Amino acid sequence: MLDQLKIEVCAANRSLVDHDLVTLTWGNVSGIDRQSGRVVIKPSGVDYHDLMPEHMVVVDLDGNRIEGELNPSSDTATHVWLYRNFSAIGGVTHTHSRYATMYSQCRREIPCLGTTHADHFHGPVPVTRPLTESEVAQAYEANTGKVITERFADLDPIAMPAVLVAGHAPFAWGPSAKKSVENAVALEAVAQMTLGCQQIMAGQQDNAVPRLEAYVLEKHYQRKHGPDAYYGQAKSSS
Amino acid sequence: MLDQLKIEVCAANRSLVDHDLVTLTWGNVSGIDRQSGRVVIKPSGVDYHDLMPEHMVVVDLDGNRIEGELNPSSDTATHVWLYRNFSAIGGVTHTHSRYATMYSQCRREIPCLGTTHADHFHGPVPVTRPLTESEVAQAYEANTGKVITERFADLDPIAMPAVLVAGHAPFAWGPSAKKSVENAVALEAVAQMTLGCQQIMAGQQDNAVPRLEAYVLEKHYQRKHGPDAYYGQAKSSS
Amino acid sequence: MLDQLKIEVCAANRSLVDHDLVTLTWGNVSGIDRQSGRVVIKPSGVDYHDLMPEHMVVVDLDGNRIEGELNPSSDTATHVWLYRNFSAIGGVTHTHSRYATMYSQCRREIPCLGTTHADHFHGPVPVTRPLTESEVAQAYEANTGKVITERFADLDPIAMPAVLVAGHAPFAWGPSAKKSVENAVALEAVAQMTLGCQQIMAGQQDNAVPRLEAYVLEKHYQRKHGPDAYYGQAKSSS
Amino acid sequence: MLDQLKIEVCAANRSLVDHDLVTLTWGNVSGIDRQSGRVVIKPSGVDYHDLMPEHMVVVDLDGNRIEGELNPSSDTATHVWLYRNFSAIGGVTHTHSRYATMYSQCRREIPCLGTTHADHFHGPVPVTRPLTESEVAQAYEANTGKVITERFADLDPIAMPAVLVAGHAPFAWGPSAKKSVENAVALEAVAQMTLGCQQIMAGQQDNAVPRLEAYVLEKHYQRKHGPDAYYGQAKSSS
Repeated sequence: MLDQLKIEVCAANRSLVDHDLVTLTWGNVSGIDRQSGRVVIKPSGVDYHDLMPEHMVVVDLDGNRIEGELNPSSDTATHVWLYRNFSAIGGVTHTHSRYATMYSQCRREIPCLGTTHADHFHGPVPVTRPLTESEVAQAYEANTGKVITERFADLDPIAMPAVLVAGHAPFAWGPSAKKSVENAVALEAVAQMTLGCQQIMAGQQDNAVPRLEAYVLEKHYQRKHGPDAYYGQAKSSS
Repeated sequence: MLDQLKIEVCAANRSLVDHDLVTLTWGNVSGIDRQSGRVVIKPSGVDYHDLMPEHMVVVDLDGNRIEGELNPSSDTATHVWLYRNFSAIGGVTHTHSRYATMYSQCRREIPCLGTTHADHFHGPVPVTRPLTESEVAQAYEANTGKVITERFADLDPIAMPAVLVAGHAPFAWGPSAKKSVENAVALEAVAQMTLGCQQIMAGQQDNAVPRLEAYVLEKHYQRKHGPDAYYGQAKSSS
Repeated sequence: MLDQLKIEVCAANRSLVDHDLVTLTWGNVSGIDRQSGRVVIKPSGVDYHDLMPEHMVVVDLDGNRIEGELNPSSDTATHVWLYRNFSAIGGVTHTHSRYATMYSQCRREIPCLGTTHADHFHGPVPVTRPLTESEVAQAYEANTGKVITERFADLDPIAMPAVLVAGHAPFAWGPSAKKSVENAVALEAVAQMTLGCQQIMAGQQDNAVPRLEAYVLEKHYQRKHGPDAYYGQAKSSS
Repeated sequence: MLDQLKIEVCAANRSLVDHDLVTLTWGNVSGIDRQSGRVVIKPSGVDYHDLMPEHMVVVDLDGNRIEGELNPSSDTATHVWLYRNFSAIGGVTHTHSRYATMYSQCRREIPCLGTTHADHFHGPVPVTRPLTESEVAQAYEANTGKVITERFADLDPIAMPAVLVAGHAPFAWGPSAKKSVENAVALEAVAQMTLGCQQIMAGQQDNAVPRLEAYVLEKHYQRKHGPDAYYGQAKSSS
């Protein structure tokens, strides 16, 4: 059952490697068939290169395994929590991508600094509160979903398709498994660029960096582009 | 029509992936045939791996689609503005490459710190002013072109083949589509190295880093290169 | 002899390249057959791409070569020291991976900042003391093992499968050669993310970074996702 | 003539791409045949992927082209200066690799912080003085060689096989073209790690980074490794 969805979810999981979002097996993508209420998800701890559509695990909205020989992702309870509470979403991606995870670990939201961010996220990407000790002790993965939806009390999950779980890592979602991966990709890019921006602005020491002497600038520009250029194989090349 | 230009522009768009300048579909390259006044540009939102020359869209200098089944890049109005105002250029590249975008988001020019920069850009790479609210509300993409050409009132676009649009990302250009990509590559490299230089100079705390003990330095150097070297398969290898 | 182990150790060494843990020949993996007390290890100074199982060197627990034509890794004495002292381990990986080596050079432990770390290391990853001048002069590689096991006097090597050697680089281990590589991969990831976290929190200058104007955020979000979206090939795509 | 050397120098130039040392055509490797006093060098401005041994250019120790249809690298005069003054070297590599170039631009030496450095460079990697305006105006590339050898008045080029040219980029050398590339690779690695170390030590704000709660650490470690582990496909996997 759900053969097409298994193909899509398998491809979405494999694409995590192409997008450089995962290390070892630290990431999982799921997709939902809203009509049947069935969720298709990556099996736990399996290498992406070995993943085939028939390895995908089917669970119900309570996270019970309905089909498949392998254990579903250990984060399954978080995925199904999100599907139950965000009725408009069709896919969920969880990774420990480097830069988004750094912001999760620092428990700081990612502010909107540019149009790359605005193209995907309608405002700052939010952070959850930390889980309490008892939330960790019992139903940890479901409670990870709970702190996410709690944080979204006043947020639209379609306009803000990602969150940073405090001390953990990001979750992203979208209308399909593939779109949830794209949002995870965008999140990683804006996280990296936000850190870079902080570093640039911290560099008020900037003036300490020596500028190139004007005569060297001139020499290098002219030896490649000037009337007597001698770089490359023909003077006309620029 | 313009078959050769379509091949070139398609190849230039695909090369964005090889040069690691793009994420998802965040970038587009165009080229112009000055004789006919026709611009060939990437279709909007299409994956680079799927791009074929026949997918390229032909527009006139007002941005009207003349040929092609797909919608042209949503940034087309910026490209044609640049072609209308910079008569010497033959290609335009727009990306959200990480480091150049960081400087765009910080709205800070990239100073000339070395010969890598001087080989491509005849001075600091400039930043535009931000667009006003009304410039964003109406003809946003054309106005993106306008703030660029406004910034170039006293600059030669041949000697300075790139700009950082404030809060957005870079545009680069050149005598051809291919050369515009090369300038985008050079821009990304100098942006990354400029940030690194700021970080090195900020490190006046540098002396806090422990130096390797002299006797360890000696040991490691000698075990690989000294008369009794025992690294590798033969003493003579160094 | 030990054909299966040679295949595993060879594959583990080659995987260092796939995991981006090595530069030139700066890394080596070994595995042990506890029954015979034989250790299989990479030959010194051989390129990973050329490694074949038959190149692997077999040594005893004193580091004497038992089989193989090539010299064993120059770090062999450290590997065998670890096998002698950590009876539960089956594989050892040594690399100079960038971020873990930075922390080794700074002689600072890697604190536990998130669940990625907690998934692999049961607390902060420790640093050894520096070797003394006489420890470097005589039996340098064995003494590198000695400062590691000294540091683990009160630590369980199974719960903490990695260490940073002061001024040098990391060693990781595990129940098998393959698992030791996975721990080296996890170590590199948490080292990179720890540095990033320090940088984010240092960025109290964060407020210096200009936020995107609200009207630009709105424009970019809506041109891709709003009712009149014009990005991509169909209004329904989001 | 010099067919074997052309093959070696061509392969060394192509390897710059594999080692991620070059962007566009910003790098060149040469090798010398000491018996004939002939130097084989990359042609200027040619893409590495297109390079064939027959494209290599042969010059004499004054930089005059002896054989080959293409122009030699525009840096040829620097290469031959080094061969004339460092009689023990057999190959020279010049790149604009990112991190080494950052230190060149900052005009700061790279201190020896660890054994990775000590394995290749017998002390801090030195920086040249800047060239004067008249040295740039006349015989610029030969004078680039001159400031290098001037800096090496009290240094052994075999024990210190690299230099940072102020405001420009690194040169590395070695007994052969291939070994000069390896030294350029090592230089880039130590430059990157030195910057990282400065950043770690600057992070005395380190304590500002929130540590993971002990109960989350415990949960994550145990769900993967404890007696009731439920990550992966079998409890015995760790």
